[in-house]
Amino acid sequence: MTRGILTTPVTRIDGAASRSTQDLLAVEEPLEIRVGGRTVSITMRTPGNDFELAAGFLFGEGILRHADDIREISRPESVSENPRKQENSVDVSLNDGVEVDFERLERHFYTTSSCGVCGKASIEALQIQGCPMLPRESPMVAMDVIHGLPGALRRDQAAFERTGGIHAAALFRANGELIGLREDVGRHNAVDKVIGSEFLARRTPLGDAVLLVSGRASFELMQKALMAGVPMLAAVGAPSSLAVEVARRFSMTLLGFVRDGRFNIYSGEWRIQ
Amino acid sequence: MTRGILTTPVTRIDGAASRSTQDLLAVEEPLEIRVGGRTVSITMRTPGNDFELAAGFLFGEGILRHADDIREISRPESVSENPRKQENSVDVSLNDGVEVDFERLERHFYTTSSCGVCGKASIEALQIQGCPMLPRESPMVAMDVIHGLPGALRRDQAAFERTGGIHAAALFRANGELIGLREDVGRHNAVDKVIGSEFLARRTPLGDAVLLVSGRASFELMQKALMAGVPMLAAVGAPSSLAVEVARRFSMTLLGFVRDGRFNIYSGEWRIQ
Repeated sequence: MTRGILTTPVTRIDGAASRSTQDLLAVEEPLEIRVGGRTVSITMRTPGNDFELAAGFLFGEGILRHADDIREISRPESVSENPRKQENSVDVSLNDGVEVDFERLERHFYTTSSCGVCGKASIEALQIQGCPMLPRESPMVAMDVIHGLPGALRRDQAAFERTGGIHAAALFRANGELIGLREDVGRHNAVDKVIGSEFLARRTPLGDAVLLVSGRASFELMQKALMAGVPMLAAVGAPSSLAVEVARRFSMTLLGFVRDGRFNIYSGEWRIQ
Repeated sequence: MTRGILTTPVTRIDGAASRSTQDLLAVEEPLEIRVGGRTVSITMRTPGNDFELAAGFLFGEGILRHADDIREISRPESVSENPRKQENSVDVSLNDGVEVDFERLERHFYTTSSCGVCGKASIEALQIQGCPMLPRESPMVAMDVIHGLPGALRRDQAAFERTGGIHAAALFRANGELIGLREDVGRHNAVDKVIGSEFLARRTPLGDAVLLVSGRASFELMQKALMAGVPMLAAVGAPSSLAVEVARRFSMTLLGFVRDGRFNIYSGEWRIQ
């Protein structure tokens, strides 16, 4: 993550005292995600793992279904005249026969003109997307494993320790083994990166995984977990009302305030041993 | 903020002990923002102060310049058959002669096809937008006032205390007096609401105000502050690299980690007394 961190001069105030020092900043830069040369999204992200981010984003939106849909992920050449710009675009070219519903992306998929806009419609859109109910029986996770997740996250979360400004998302197996961890100034990007990594390695759906996020659980993060088949999401922070609704509707396990040996179970208690 | 909070049953785990109880959730629902009947944005937000949110968003994007641009803000009637949907759409109708560049909104304004995508281009786009350099001399804020901001925020931040899941944004005068405070599951929405409120009351630009945000400072929040002419942004959390760059480019004062009697000055030290 060294590319993700910058040093900058600051004045540090403590009470009435002040001194000049250096501070570490989490890098934020836009990433343009293109599909076949067409811009589909621009997200403010921390550079690094951009191909995973693009793949994970497109997978989470239902645009990509399988890694075999992808012919190549590359940096567009047309923006290469400036090194700072060059690293802020990714193009995903698709194999022959793979069709993309660009209109859905443009509409932002959880609005449908026929049913209006509300949380219920947002959830129904996930079903229309083809999001399955997750199987109730898998996996079982021991309570001690869950208590141990935040510590495991912190051990590997290098950039946050140094900048205080980075979200993390990590995938664990049901036995607590770390599958992968990614960091980003945007929490949705961190999730896209860690899921995108597994997607590109052809290891989705992630039916035996737990997704831990360093912040809060929103509708958007639940959607991404659900699209990847992840049956359990654990958040160090609070869940929103819509996150809880999504979890209950799709038989996901949702845990909040997972820290200091405590957590709340909002849905899917039967997966906790 | 009672509409912004829901009660839900949870199982609370403490070590190996578990008990059933009730928990409070921050409500998350989509809001469709329309201009003259045309959908320009859908944001996941906490219901409440939706007219301010719509106005603040459109002002921050440079679509609205003055409250007099607005003929009326209303709930579209076409989605009123369902009470849950009815409250999730807002339509802003414009006075005759007010022209809107819808294309800019669709492009997401910080990308310009001519110059590629990077932080530098994002910042240049703000200049093209007409964002002015802020005057260096105003306002001066005493160090003690800054130390007191997080406490003032907490005193009025009702929903966060109860849910742990809400961001807050507050405007203060240079002497520490609270102008307004808004809460939302999305930190950008909280900023849109509090600035939108001042915009609708014809009190923008906010040349003598300090904007305090409960989380981190990103490019997007700096952009919103800048468009409103707010010369000082104080974040309880960390700033990103691009937030610092925007502050330095436009002579804004940016403070980070404002808590426990300490803070870092990233830019615009001359405004601190």
